Amino acid sequence: MTTKPMIEAAFGRPTKRKPIWFLRQAGRYLPEYREVRKNVEFTELCKTPKLAAEVTLQPLRRYDLDASIIFSDILVPCMPMGQELTFGKGHGPQLNPPIQSGAALAKLKKPDAEKDLGYVGEALQLVKDQLQDHQTMIGFAGAPFTVASYMIEGAGSKTYTELKRLRYQEPEAFKGLLDLLVETTIDYLIMQVNAGADCLMLFDTWANQMTAVDYKDLVFPAVNKVIREVKDRCDVPLIYYPGQGTDLYFELQGYAGDVIAVDWRTRLSRAISFLDNVGLDVSVQGNLDPQVLIASEDVVREHTRQVLQEAGKARGHIFNVGHGLQPHLNPEAVNWVIDEVRKSEKS
Amino acid sequence: MTTKPMIEAAFGRPTKRKPIWFLRQAGRYLPEYREVRKNVEFTELCKTPKLAAEVTLQPLRRYDLDASIIFSDILVPCMPMGQELTFGKGHGPQLNPPIQSGAALAKLKKPDAEKDLGYVGEALQLVKDQLQDHQTMIGFAGAPFTVASYMIEGAGSKTYTELKRLRYQEPEAFKGLLDLLVETTIDYLIMQVNAGADCLMLFDTWANQMTAVDYKDLVFPAVNKVIREVKDRCDVPLIYYPGQGTDLYFELQGYAGDVIAVDWRTRLSRAISFLDNVGLDVSVQGNLDPQVLIASEDVVREHTRQVLQEAGKARGHIFNVGHGLQPHLNPEAVNWVIDEVRKSEKS
Repeated sequence: MTTKPMIEAAFGRPTKRKPIWFLRQAGRYLPEYREVRKNVEFTELCKTPKLAAEVTLQPLRRYDLDASIIFSDILVPCMPMGQELTFGKGHGPQLNPPIQSGAALAKLKKPDAEKDLGYVGEALQLVKDQLQDHQTMIGFAGAPFTVASYMIEGAGSKTYTELKRLRYQEPEAFKGLLDLLVETTIDYLIMQVNAGADCLMLFDTWANQMTAVDYKDLVFPAVNKVIREVKDRCDVPLIYYPGQGTDLYFELQGYAGDVIAVDWRTRLSRAISFLDNVGLDVSVQGNLDPQVLIASEDVVREHTRQVLQEAGKARGHIFNVGHGLQPHLNPEAVNWVIDEVRKSEKS
Repeated sequence: MTTKPMIEAAFGRPTKRKPIWFLRQAGRYLPEYREVRKNVEFTELCKTPKLAAEVTLQPLRRYDLDASIIFSDILVPCMPMGQELTFGKGHGPQLNPPIQSGAALAKLKKPDAEKDLGYVGEALQLVKDQLQDHQTMIGFAGAPFTVASYMIEGAGSKTYTELKRLRYQEPEAFKGLLDLLVETTIDYLIMQVNAGADCLMLFDTWANQMTAVDYKDLVFPAVNKVIREVKDRCDVPLIYYPGQGTDLYFELQGYAGDVIAVDWRTRLSRAISFLDNVGLDVSVQGNLDPQVLIASEDVVREHTRQVLQEAGKARGHIFNVGHGLQPHLNPEAVNWVIDEVRKSEKS
């Protein structure tokens, strides 16, 4: 069996090839993706295994990538929990009704992962069949807190006022929602492993909407419980993205996963030394600024080399952007990054 | 002459009284502010010294505060530079036309601070006349980079795409805009000191929209030049807010100001030790989560005590929130915070 460079790097084992993939590598910056989206709504795309598999595979046809992440959204589990998920034109996701009280929480149910979210597993299986041996199939979910934020606000937010209101005024309901999401997320991730995922990623994009103290007491224990349970039951590496900046790294004591995904704002070398200071023996993923992909070829290559250099002391390093690729980015620039990474392996 | 506790704390000298004020202490959470706003647009309010002074003084009539910050907006200098500033209902500020090229930059002019922005000085003088001896009059401006971000985007942004485009595709125009804002901001702050400001604050709210490397090479030198020039010419302490998180603290070598304002997401004790590690001998301001002011009295008091405790090792500490007060917050909770701070002085 061929080893997969991404799995090796995630576990901190030596690799000849530097694994590389891109957050939101299947997306609107690709004309072939926009073509598919002409005829199908976003939620429908997630729910239709053949189409989800098709757009997942698009970037692998163009680029020499080491991993494929299943095309989906962190909010799909909210649908079988009891919320309607829509994506308005030019707006982000909307969830209805928002969960802003213990009474609203009581109406939610824990999904049956196989039955209610099986379409994600089906899509994953279809993609997996097309991958080369060295390529890793990544499953993912939102971390409990970040999904809870959306469920409470009903949408993205600048101030997260409803989230704070529930946390401060109905702390039991807030905790109850996190608990429900912990159980839901465990089942959801295990279902994805059963369908073929070789690796899992948990996105906690909004983690730093809480104070460091609340993160430590409420947010991190929830996601770490998910990670511990999944790791107990499946032998796959787990990547966790704790949001913008490094402030929360200091609250990660006892982290049960294998990799920390690093935001692009941070110097990767500093992130690595902070994680080391906290006593974590982990690999890192990241952290090119995705917006660099609008720059000229020499600038793109220079920034790529900077990231490679900053990663020097990592136990293992998975090259990636520090945030998802955006619609206006130049598809050709992705090749410049990959080529620069490949060059570094030969030197 | 009575000493002002906030000035003493800013310079790191001992104070009997812990200075306290609140970012955006004059604002929509106060019914008397909403009453004034019924009859006047935001920009008009900033431009009318009597009204600006009136709303600036409102929180001082309600609360036992150690400082008053002139009511204005970081974007008012953009008007005499050549942009129209509007605040649509429910939207943030909008600037027209946006500055997205060297050609657009060439049409901007450097304002005459006394002539074009004298209304800020007039309002400041009116407020100063009403302050008690122990109270500090704060003037402020946006840091060059943060104002540049708004001028380029024409509004707030989630992705700052136009900012990155200019920075990567027309780096000379980007640098030129920063240079123009450096000169504009120096004159603007000195005008405020001449009008009576005892202390100055520079807001770099969007600083972490840049990578740490760009912050170090482009953003920080611009704001530090402003600080150095102003400090050379005026004997007032200067507070700088470098945006969310502590990642950028490591790029602050040579900081010429007196105080760093700390975001609410960060543990204040860690911020203090990071600043110390970087070799900075500075005071800190902050950093209560403003959203705590929707919680019950015991929670508000507990969080206030936490901030006081975290500030323990600071050279000097000015109590504040870590971000501006928001419209939905409870005005009575401000008194709970102040009372808890006053209690701590007696223990």
